[in-house]
Amino acid sequence: MHESDVLHRLSKRQVEAGDPGAVYLVGTGPGDPGLLTLRAAQLMNTADVVLYDRLVSPDILQLIHGGAMMVYVGKQKGFHTRTQDEIHGLLCRFAHAGATVLRLKGGDPYIFGRGGEEAQYLRERGIDVHCVPGITAASGISAELGIPLTHRGLATSVRFLTGHARESGEDALDATVAASADRDTTLVIYMGLGTLPSLVAQLMRAGLPRDTPAAAVERGTTPQQRVVYARLQDLERRVAEAGLRSPTLIMIGEVVALAPGWWLAEGCGLSEGACRAVERVVA
Amino acid sequence: MHESDVLHRLSKRQVEAGDPGAVYLVGTGPGDPGLLTLRAAQLMNTADVVLYDRLVSPDILQLIHGGAMMVYVGKQKGFHTRTQDEIHGLLCRFAHAGATVLRLKGGDPYIFGRGGEEAQYLRERGIDVHCVPGITAASGISAELGIPLTHRGLATSVRFLTGHARESGEDALDATVAASADRDTTLVIYMGLGTLPSLVAQLMRAGLPRDTPAAAVERGTTPQQRVVYARLQDLERRVAEAGLRSPTLIMIGEVVALAPGWWLAEGCGLSEGACRAVERVVA
Repeated sequence: MHESDVLHRLSKRQVEAGDPGAVYLVGTGPGDPGLLTLRAAQLMNTADVVLYDRLVSPDILQLIHGGAMMVYVGKQKGFHTRTQDEIHGLLCRFAHAGATVLRLKGGDPYIFGRGGEEAQYLRERGIDVHCVPGITAASGISAELGIPLTHRGLATSVRFLTGHARESGEDALDATVAASADRDTTLVIYMGLGTLPSLVAQLMRAGLPRDTPAAAVERGTTPQQRVVYARLQDLERRVAEAGLRSPTLIMIGEVVALAPGWWLAEGCGLSEGACRAVERVVA
Repeated sequence: MHESDVLHRLSKRQVEAGDPGAVYLVGTGPGDPGLLTLRAAQLMNTADVVLYDRLVSPDILQLIHGGAMMVYVGKQKGFHTRTQDEIHGLLCRFAHAGATVLRLKGGDPYIFGRGGEEAQYLRERGIDVHCVPGITAASGISAELGIPLTHRGLATSVRFLTGHARESGEDALDATVAASADRDTTLVIYMGLGTLPSLVAQLMRAGLPRDTPAAAVERGTTPQQRVVYARLQDLERRVAEAGLRSPTLIMIGEVVALAPGWWLAEGCGLSEGACRAVERVVA
């Protein structure tokens, strides 16, 4: 629905109700609708306006009640792409018009979701902001694959990084990646496909063993999930061979070897395609 | 219910049904029932046997259907405390008896929840294991307090550590803590109350600025939540003054200063108790 239509409808209703609006930043998890929280589901059943982007899965959008006004704010070929500033402005206008506004996000709004920026902008303008946490991709995919993020004797800590250059300066990324080359820490990289070659090179240069187990997971927890298991030194090549595309999550650490799928990929001597087939049968 | 009664009932039923059992390791989040996943709620409505401990909140236990056999496996004054080995054995016996077994955990089973150990033990014995991820305390409390775990320009990475000595050797903890003294990374410490003095000392020695904002949160997201905000150098004293008790989560990093509650604690010039009262009114 176009924003002017939304505002027109809201203005008519506000005259009747006079309610103050509010914005809910709602995490929808990695894609599987079963991983929505009860609170997210309840809000999706009552909201006036819903803003969503391409990281919110179609299966989840289907759960929103028919009376909600839907506003797409993500990237789409041939259509205008909203900037973060434009999204801020829309949230603000809808809330000022008295609406209960849902800003749906993939994963968790406060883990690489830019929820902090949106909350700050709205609070400074006196708008009520609430955040509903979501299952972050690391957690959803860890459960799906059977890879514990921490494990006695293998990982005493877990660290989430982004490979996305825009999220940090090049130098900051380098320092943080170098400091992450720690055998006792599970490393999870969000949006890391584009910078994977330099990431892997930096980690190995900083001392992370070349044979550290790793997994790359495209569209984790959805029916389209694809998984590539590899040792760190082979990860880039295997991911390229499989042609993985965004969104892909990368997990690096000894814990990856606890996944039943790793055992198949390592142990069965089959091609990766065949291993994946075996894994599906086993699951 | 005592385990022998559970097994007795199961053995009678298995003769009728003959189903193979399965174990679900289910994360219940930090305590607020609204943060349960739809899948967790569905399983709580159908399971035969439920194993739970003191980290699962009473409000959540109330949602389990009346026909489930409840087995408490946590610590309780004056009662026998189950070891991890005993819990493994119980899960195994109930599953072999054909039950759908729910092992409920606070937070997420694969983030400091020992879910990996339980899954490994059961898989090795041919038992079907599924993991349902939960909202981890860091995520739930971050949303509750308005502290984004990552934020452009402030935190390009987030790291979860445990302060619990049993989870890691003393040396391992030291190295990991020292490597965590990074201004661009939000640090979240689980079960860190006992080791807080040494943790803070190590972080400051490793170069983390003494005035880094921090928060300690007891029973986050529940009605009993208590929050202490302080600069890193004052954190230990403030936590002791407030008498915070386990479970308490500690968050350290520039992002803490984005919380509306931090602004009140810093800016209002009142005592902490008064600040908390103001915060409740504002919320």
